[in-house]
Amino acid sequence: MKVGFIGLGHMGFGMAENLLRAGHDLTVYNRTPGKDEVLLQKGAHRAHQAAEACRGEAVFTMLADDRAVESVVYGDRGILASLPKGALHISSSTISVALSDRLTADHAAAGQQYIAAPVLGRPEMAAAGQLFVVAAGAPDAINTAMRLLQAIGQKAFVVSDTPKSANLVKLSANFLIASVIESLGEALALVAKAEVDKHQYLDILTSTLFNAPVYKTYGAIIADGRFEPAGFAALLGQKDIRLVLAAADELRAPMPLASLLRDRFLTLLAHRGDRLDWSAVGSLASKDAGLN
Amino acid sequence: MKVGFIGLGHMGFGMAENLLRAGHDLTVYNRTPGKDEVLLQKGAHRAHQAAEACRGEAVFTMLADDRAVESVVYGDRGILASLPKGALHISSSTISVALSDRLTADHAAAGQQYIAAPVLGRPEMAAAGQLFVVAAGAPDAINTAMRLLQAIGQKAFVVSDTPKSANLVKLSANFLIASVIESLGEALALVAKAEVDKHQYLDILTSTLFNAPVYKTYGAIIADGRFEPAGFAALLGQKDIRLVLAAADELRAPMPLASLLRDRFLTLLAHRGDRLDWSAVGSLASKDAGLN
Amino acid sequence: MKVGFIGLGHMGFGMAENLLRAGHDLTVYNRTPGKDEVLLQKGAHRAHQAAEACRGEAVFTMLADDRAVESVVYGDRGILASLPKGALHISSSTISVALSDRLTADHAAAGQQYIAAPVLGRPEMAAAGQLFVVAAGAPDAINTAMRLLQAIGQKAFVVSDTPKSANLVKLSANFLIASVIESLGEALALVAKAEVDKHQYLDILTSTLFNAPVYKTYGAIIADGRFEPAGFAALLGQKDIRLVLAAADELRAPMPLASLLRDRFLTLLAHRGDRLDWSAVGSLASKDAGLN
Amino acid sequence: MKVGFIGLGHMGFGMAENLLRAGHDLTVYNRTPGKDEVLLQKGAHRAHQAAEACRGEAVFTMLADDRAVESVVYGDRGILASLPKGALHISSSTISVALSDRLTADHAAAGQQYIAAPVLGRPEMAAAGQLFVVAAGAPDAINTAMRLLQAIGQKAFVVSDTPKSANLVKLSANFLIASVIESLGEALALVAKAEVDKHQYLDILTSTLFNAPVYKTYGAIIADGRFEPAGFAALLGQKDIRLVLAAADELRAPMPLASLLRDRFLTLLAHRGDRLDWSAVGSLASKDAGLN
Repeated sequence: MKVGFIGLGHMGFGMAENLLRAGHDLTVYNRTPGKDEVLLQKGAHRAHQAAEACRGEAVFTMLADDRAVESVVYGDRGILASLPKGALHISSSTISVALSDRLTADHAAAGQQYIAAPVLGRPEMAAAGQLFVVAAGAPDAINTAMRLLQAIGQKAFVVSDTPKSANLVKLSANFLIASVIESLGEALALVAKAEVDKHQYLDILTSTLFNAPVYKTYGAIIADGRFEPAGFAALLGQKDIRLVLAAADELRAPMPLASLLRDRFLTLLAHRGDRLDWSAVGSLASKDAGLN
Repeated sequence: MKVGFIGLGHMGFGMAENLLRAGHDLTVYNRTPGKDEVLLQKGAHRAHQAAEACRGEAVFTMLADDRAVESVVYGDRGILASLPKGALHISSSTISVALSDRLTADHAAAGQQYIAAPVLGRPEMAAAGQLFVVAAGAPDAINTAMRLLQAIGQKAFVVSDTPKSANLVKLSANFLIASVIESLGEALALVAKAEVDKHQYLDILTSTLFNAPVYKTYGAIIADGRFEPAGFAALLGQKDIRLVLAAADELRAPMPLASLLRDRFLTLLAHRGDRLDWSAVGSLASKDAGLN
Repeated sequence: MKVGFIGLGHMGFGMAENLLRAGHDLTVYNRTPGKDEVLLQKGAHRAHQAAEACRGEAVFTMLADDRAVESVVYGDRGILASLPKGALHISSSTISVALSDRLTADHAAAGQQYIAAPVLGRPEMAAAGQLFVVAAGAPDAINTAMRLLQAIGQKAFVVSDTPKSANLVKLSANFLIASVIESLGEALALVAKAEVDKHQYLDILTSTLFNAPVYKTYGAIIADGRFEPAGFAALLGQKDIRLVLAAADELRAPMPLASLLRDRFLTLLAHRGDRLDWSAVGSLASKDAGLN
Repeated sequence: MKVGFIGLGHMGFGMAENLLRAGHDLTVYNRTPGKDEVLLQKGAHRAHQAAEACRGEAVFTMLADDRAVESVVYGDRGILASLPKGALHISSSTISVALSDRLTADHAAAGQQYIAAPVLGRPEMAAAGQLFVVAAGAPDAINTAMRLLQAIGQKAFVVSDTPKSANLVKLSANFLIASVIESLGEALALVAKAEVDKHQYLDILTSTLFNAPVYKTYGAIIADGRFEPAGFAALLGQKDIRLVLAAADELRAPMPLASLLRDRFLTLLAHRGDRLDWSAVGSLASKDAGLN
């Protein structure tokens, strides 16, 4: 398939590489130049602007936030103006439910197709084609996209024919991870104040009831206070919790634990934590407890 | 070994059975009679009062709360008065850090040994001898106990030579489980209001990032609203969160997520939820959101 | 002075009336017709659209939310397009800090003046000219406005030369009132469960340490459960807490009590509380406690 | 009346002095000697132990916490053992609802009378005889006490014939004050980050909607960061919030704002804030926001 890919960050790069590997005819665009070199060597074409990545049957966007997506979608040379009728925009960015809804309407009005297909997993999973894809959109659009989604992930889940539902599921998953971080942060503060060994404590947890990677990965980072380099920056984590709460506002669903996370992220950012891994919110309970 | 066992509830029964199975000479006591029949048939001796279970090298207690433990430990015919010098009290109940500390001192003063050995796992794991034991106490007392602990669990972790540390670890683990329940409750309320299918949603979570039994077990119970019969009653869950907060108070460790759980449990109990499974706190976010 | 007034709701009507009473030459506009009759009889002129209220030295806006203000400010016949160069827009609506900032820039670009002048007080205070005005803006614009502000309020406070600061102060005051409501709600739930008489309890509080009108007014409403008719609708209260949190987000100021209020308002709205008085959030603690 | 008074701290001293001033025959006792000198000069008698203060018709206790009250009530030479049958124990300390209940039963069993009569107000009000007394107990006991209560306070409110209700009302009032402190702390952090002048801000609040002394007093202390010397120590504030939550636990009344305060106080104490004024919890929002 002839496909465009916009956004070659930590996640996007690996996703694009796996599309190439699967044999697709790929044109890539990144605002900051240079990130595409390796992909060009592997056969990708370079787009000098977003519009040039919109000449195939589908275009992916994998960008940091709503603003970045809006900047490539709207405007004279944006995706909306450039994508052929009937072609497909696959939005994998973690964006707001509200923007996903607006893109659904705008692409429909332009005679284009739109699906939301955010992904679960960290950069190394993206590189290995082992992401989990959560997709939603009109069945025929999903059908068209499926070969592509299977190239970037180990599994694609279709959750709804309303695109924004996939964004909500993705955001809620990040809320759940952040909840794990907070709960581990509080538990570690508690046992550390009683002089229990933090690493043995985590070994007990993760070899018994909490044997999921999310507990192992974040438990170790928090216990070691090893928040740099960031796998997922606190600033993005804060954005996601903000988007969860915005969706919850709209749906009138009170989420006190998400509210707690909101305040934790703001505390972190207010102390220059923007570039730390988002799991640094798991260090705040210890700080409040007078440790470190 | 000649061992006593006090408390044949959902958990204690299975633990006692596994001690028998491992060949120990077991005397059992339960306040409510009748629960020991099956064990007597398998070779256990019946104690007519707690004191009669205190004639061997060690006695286990596996009771509901501080008060129940105090009632068998103190008094003329209590464990303290009955256990031979040098013999061992293995306390597996989920009790307060403060009581564990007091028992440590009182047994030492009486020339007896004391270890805390609370367990992680639900009744079916107790029946199968597959519990995880978190033990703490003086090294020689732990040594004596180890054969017994291995009979009741698949693994025994020794976390400290201060008994109360094991109680703290156990309580913190229950806090972490309750945190999972709350986070799932909020996430399910959010996606359900957007008409995402709750069971598919849980399938996605538990087949990807959250593939730990605790997410599967409690996710299903919450999504189905199937809180009876209780595997672990809300009243006990509330007690454990109360004990976590009491320990946190003493240690001066603020735990806002534990505070949130405290209020959730009180809300549940205020609406006659005492006998529901503790995961019914995971239904409160949906209730607040106007669902069901 | 020749002045326009846009927005004749519960608050705006009284403010406009007091401008008339002070002798100003007033032209009034309200989207829903009919509300201006009484004012016309007292000498006001009727504007048939917002633009017609923009022909004097200043125009007030007193509208429900950001959206309503944007709808009269922007567009071909909006305030920005209609107000003479050098004339003044006095924005008394409770709007977001972000919109106030944008209006500051847009009016400056159009050669107009802009001040934020939100008010503290309920409709009966507006009718009596007894509001408190919190104003911010360039000193000369404030000077021009002062005679008008003194007509609508018993006192005008100038807090900054940056207009949005006045909006922040106003929003924070509503946060403080909502905090009183929540704290009274929890205290009343507590003592009511112990069968203390709620009215006597409030008498004690408000005749001793808490002798401010805000405690008297809201305490009585909550104790009586008398949330209709609404003096200030829950939907507006929720909007204000949302705007406080949006400002706090931008400023990176964690506000856990505001977060709690956010969830309380969502719970209320999720149970069809939109039209109740916002103090109905003070009934939720009793509901959670199993009362009523 | 012949009266004893036990506990000559900041509050107790003033209360005792006013009893003397009203002409009562007063015997005073304080654990730490020396505090009674001034009172002796004004005609009080010195008790060398608590029992000696129990020879009249009534004895007051005004002590720091449950433990202190228990230490003078129980034991061979405690109040219970020493007070004549029919005589009255007036407990003005801020103690737990549970202890008040136990004292009610124990005094009844000993043929003595017991009322709870905690007070609202700070030391300067105690010195001036201007406290507010919240009393509860059997009507005849209250009758006996009334002359004494009127000597120490400007007004005595009788809230119930169950003594513990007065303790609950007192605790709830402290919860309300702490809520004011937290809300002011958050509001001040918010406006300070936007560079609004904190003192002008407080002037606006306290000259308009929040014109109660509690806002003036605590607003000024927080804005100035002037937490020493403590009018009411953080350690006592934390105790009171703990007692509120213990009562709420028993009554099954969830109080999320009280839970927030609990965590705030623990954070303060974990950073060596024990001796600061309890309003120092109002500085934590600013700290979280990265200010100071």
